Amino acid sequence: MNIKHYLPILDWIPDYGRRQATSDLVAAVIVTVMLIPQSLAYALLAGLPAQVGLYASILPLVVYAVFGTSRTLSVGPVAVASLMTAAALAPLADMGTPEYIAGAVLLAVMSGLMLTVMGVLRLGFLANFLSHPVISGFITASGLVIAASQLKHIFGIEASGHNLIEVLQSVISGIGDTNMATLGIGVGALVLLVFARKRLKPLLTALGLTPRMADILTKTAPILAVLITTLVAWGFQLDQQGVKLVGEVPSGLPGLTLPTMDLQLWQQLAVSALLISVVGFVESVSVGQTLAAKRRQRIDPDQELIGLGTANISAGLSGGMPVTGGFSRSVVNFDAGAETPAAGAYTAVGIALATLFLTPAIAFLPKATLAATIIVAVSTLIDLPALGRTWRYSKADFGAMLATIVLTLVHSVEAGIISGVALSIGLFLYRTSRPHSAIVGLVPGTEHFRNVLRHDVQLCPKITFLRVDESLYFANARFLEETVMDLVTREPELKHLVLVCPAVNLIDASALESLEAINERLRDAGVNLHLSEVKGPVMDRLKGSDLLKHLTGQVFLSSFGAWQSLTGKARDLKQTA
Amino acid sequence: MNIKHYLPILDWIPDYGRRQATSDLVAAVIVTVMLIPQSLAYALLAGLPAQVGLYASILPLVVYAVFGTSRTLSVGPVAVASLMTAAALAPLADMGTPEYIAGAVLLAVMSGLMLTVMGVLRLGFLANFLSHPVISGFITASGLVIAASQLKHIFGIEASGHNLIEVLQSVISGIGDTNMATLGIGVGALVLLVFARKRLKPLLTALGLTPRMADILTKTAPILAVLITTLVAWGFQLDQQGVKLVGEVPSGLPGLTLPTMDLQLWQQLAVSALLISVVGFVESVSVGQTLAAKRRQRIDPDQELIGLGTANISAGLSGGMPVTGGFSRSVVNFDAGAETPAAGAYTAVGIALATLFLTPAIAFLPKATLAATIIVAVSTLIDLPALGRTWRYSKADFGAMLATIVLTLVHSVEAGIISGVALSIGLFLYRTSRPHSAIVGLVPGTEHFRNVLRHDVQLCPKITFLRVDESLYFANARFLEETVMDLVTREPELKHLVLVCPAVNLIDASALESLEAINERLRDAGVNLHLSEVKGPVMDRLKGSDLLKHLTGQVFLSSFGAWQSLTGKARDLKQTA
Repeated sequence: MNIKHYLPILDWIPDYGRRQATSDLVAAVIVTVMLIPQSLAYALLAGLPAQVGLYASILPLVVYAVFGTSRTLSVGPVAVASLMTAAALAPLADMGTPEYIAGAVLLAVMSGLMLTVMGVLRLGFLANFLSHPVISGFITASGLVIAASQLKHIFGIEASGHNLIEVLQSVISGIGDTNMATLGIGVGALVLLVFARKRLKPLLTALGLTPRMADILTKTAPILAVLITTLVAWGFQLDQQGVKLVGEVPSGLPGLTLPTMDLQLWQQLAVSALLISVVGFVESVSVGQTLAAKRRQRIDPDQELIGLGTANISAGLSGGMPVTGGFSRSVVNFDAGAETPAAGAYTAVGIALATLFLTPAIAFLPKATLAATIIVAVSTLIDLPALGRTWRYSKADFGAMLATIVLTLVHSVEAGIISGVALSIGLFLYRTSRPHSAIVGLVPGTEHFRNVLRHDVQLCPKITFLRVDESLYFANARFLEETVMDLVTREPELKHLVLVCPAVNLIDASALESLEAINERLRDAGVNLHLSEVKGPVMDRLKGSDLLKHLTGQVFLSSFGAWQSLTGKARDLKQTA
Repeated sequence: MNIKHYLPILDWIPDYGRRQATSDLVAAVIVTVMLIPQSLAYALLAGLPAQVGLYASILPLVVYAVFGTSRTLSVGPVAVASLMTAAALAPLADMGTPEYIAGAVLLAVMSGLMLTVMGVLRLGFLANFLSHPVISGFITASGLVIAASQLKHIFGIEASGHNLIEVLQSVISGIGDTNMATLGIGVGALVLLVFARKRLKPLLTALGLTPRMADILTKTAPILAVLITTLVAWGFQLDQQGVKLVGEVPSGLPGLTLPTMDLQLWQQLAVSALLISVVGFVESVSVGQTLAAKRRQRIDPDQELIGLGTANISAGLSGGMPVTGGFSRSVVNFDAGAETPAAGAYTAVGIALATLFLTPAIAFLPKATLAATIIVAVSTLIDLPALGRTWRYSKADFGAMLATIVLTLVHSVEAGIISGVALSIGLFLYRTSRPHSAIVGLVPGTEHFRNVLRHDVQLCPKITFLRVDESLYFANARFLEETVMDLVTREPELKHLVLVCPAVNLIDASALESLEAINERLRDAGVNLHLSEVKGPVMDRLKGSDLLKHLTGQVFLSSFGAWQSLTGKARDLKQTA
């Protein structure tokens, strides 16, 4: 493994020229404009001071440009990770206190360390256990919780809660205290953003812009909402009217922050950090792969773990919060023409400049505007029709998805995701523990064997071909014994049983014991046991075992070979109805 | 489901006649003689007064005769369940105290309820997750721990500990206090029992007994050891010499005991009760099935849960301890000619008579004799060569087995079994997450396709047949994407990719998304995606999805059909080296 593998920047920096620099700079300007309100908003969502969001959008972007393998992923604070951060820290400290901020730093550092270690140990496959329905259900439910949690800022009331029900109850009981000026700002921003999303693109296209440019400009609408509402709040001194503003934000770049060495806190946050890491990684990789495939590039998931891991460590050390690749931002970055991760580094410079010079203006930004930005952004995450699609395709997948959604909504994000993963693994194991099996026969005119119940096939008395559609392992070893013995009891004339094994990808020690027991019991019953279509890797193992020595029949390469040999020149053929 | 299903006794009682009664009575006498010392010894092992073992050998046997499906299983206290009982109760109360005895009663009732509920809900398959290497490793390790725990009785010293290391340390540090009279009794009993096991059978055979009779008589040697050492202890008043005796045992049958309603205790014992249930069930069923197969009878595992469950409930209610089917006793019962579970009921009568009339004699029985009985009995459980056999066949199975053994020895029985189960499931999931796949070609002169790396097969340029040897599900969905895209990158001439699916037993929602992504990416690359040998149940699902609508290629019944259609009359055939 050479050093270059760990430094993907070396893949592109030697060829980096003026053309790439121009494309990257254009993309960086657009992403910066989009990222400023997002980073402030997601800090608010995580219960952190606004500048923490900005800090998390500087150093991590530069570090990802060095270690990440996606050319166009835009790293920074994202909605779901911010919600998970708030959920993890809520039981430990009050929002905005120094302990709370230190907790966010620690979460970023721990997530970063976990991701980096997983990357170095090449454990990226662990993320695969987050199945598609679970992650999709989790994102949908998180979107609903996030949107509900922002309602208090729109109405200008106090509200809290860790799940949808608590949040909605709290909002409803407080709605009498609505601050009208705040509601005006919030609804105004919402209308502006929804209008931009639904109508601005056709309008800009009609004005002569290319659809791609129109699309990109549309995505920068939040900065417009920020500018307008900040001016309104400043001009009308809305803070006097009780409108909550972001308030004074320290100007200047972040210094070095070291995470607390309170071991108890490390333990308390370990599960949360792991879940934030894995969820962030799965989302990042799926965005990155989708974009990479469009340009025939590749992503190395294990190196991607290192890229995201180091980005998170640097986020923590520079006083930020957990970061990951954001979907909408990455798409804008890609569409705006970013060619290399340098675009991310340029974006970091843009955010750094904003941190240095725009903070006085940010003081007048109403929180309601940021809440409106969040609500509109997460509305695209909510995919309820996916429930119907999954239900129609697979009841097991639907079950895992529904459990994830319901538990995330009524209990907590962590309960949602953990139960989803556990349920999908459990259902998979259950399914493999009672495998489908079929008696197969010869499709006339071919050498192909199929299920007698589904196809018109030839059978031969005294010979049964049984196909078991699963690897044989401990969970179904006893089931196999029962299936075979049932079959033998039903067919007293049977002389040869051929176990057709194209679907058997593994025979473990438990199944080997079962096969030996089956072989012995069949021998006592006067039936020979044969195997056919045993795959290479499975056969390699069996050769080292006693089963083949004791086997009363033969091992055939193909089922047709078994048929020819056992029927003897295809005598006694009998066509089924 | 009719009532008869739940009352297997109705299967055999109508035909029960004098012949069966005679066979069953003979077997019952032999098993009773064997069970008396065993039930006393296993009560001692569990840290309970001797009579508890007798109580657990009366009512449960009668109840099992009504609800159990095995004709010859001998239910009662067994070594491993007794060790697990001691391990579960040790943290809660001191051995022999009323709280401790109440805990054993509760464990029996809880195990019984769990087993019965699992049986009614037909959850017997859960026991399958206890793989063969894990259970075999667990029994071996338990045997070692049990043998070590009895050394203190042989030496007549005080010792304690929850795992092998603690027990051995404790024994070694106490060995200076050895009571010589106790050691004499213990070693004497050991020598007698080992002699009986190794030499008695040939001797009896030489004296003219049939090998089967010799074998059965050999198994009753423990009662001889009990008789001799009891007489010696009584005659020489060995209790004056410091030899620990069983002591006064209340005579008479057990009354009704109700389990405590202390909910906290129920919670504390829940995991232990579950493990005792499952381990006992797995062992019982495997003994039962082995014996049933010899006489072409069948066992219904779900009803077996109910049989063992009700037996355990009755064990608890009659002041006993957890029971299950014992291996050596069941074999003796079978070999002695037992034909129906009535043999078990007759044995219960035998034990009841012993409880009524033999208890005064039992008072003089040295504990060292019982310890010797236990050591010799569990020595047959220890199967260390299994480690080597498993290592040679499968490293994954070996890993699970070793983890079970090591954790049982150095930590506790519960840690051992839980880690073994978790590890075997984890390794199975890991394996299926990175499936074997192979490029396959046509075996000349057949219609059969095999791995190019293992067989001389025909290939066709521009067409690749890729066989993936695993169900496609969330854990390997991304792996599949990578495998296919790697292949396409390596073969720029490729026009058709045929995914050969005989081993694909499931395509879940995550894998479906991946297949759609693969189809799309291949289309962009100018490659058509085909499927072949898709199984019926998988095809049924795919028909309801969008994949088939978007598929750029076709679905072929057989790979040979795909070959014929795509090569067009088998042009361009090329033989591999």
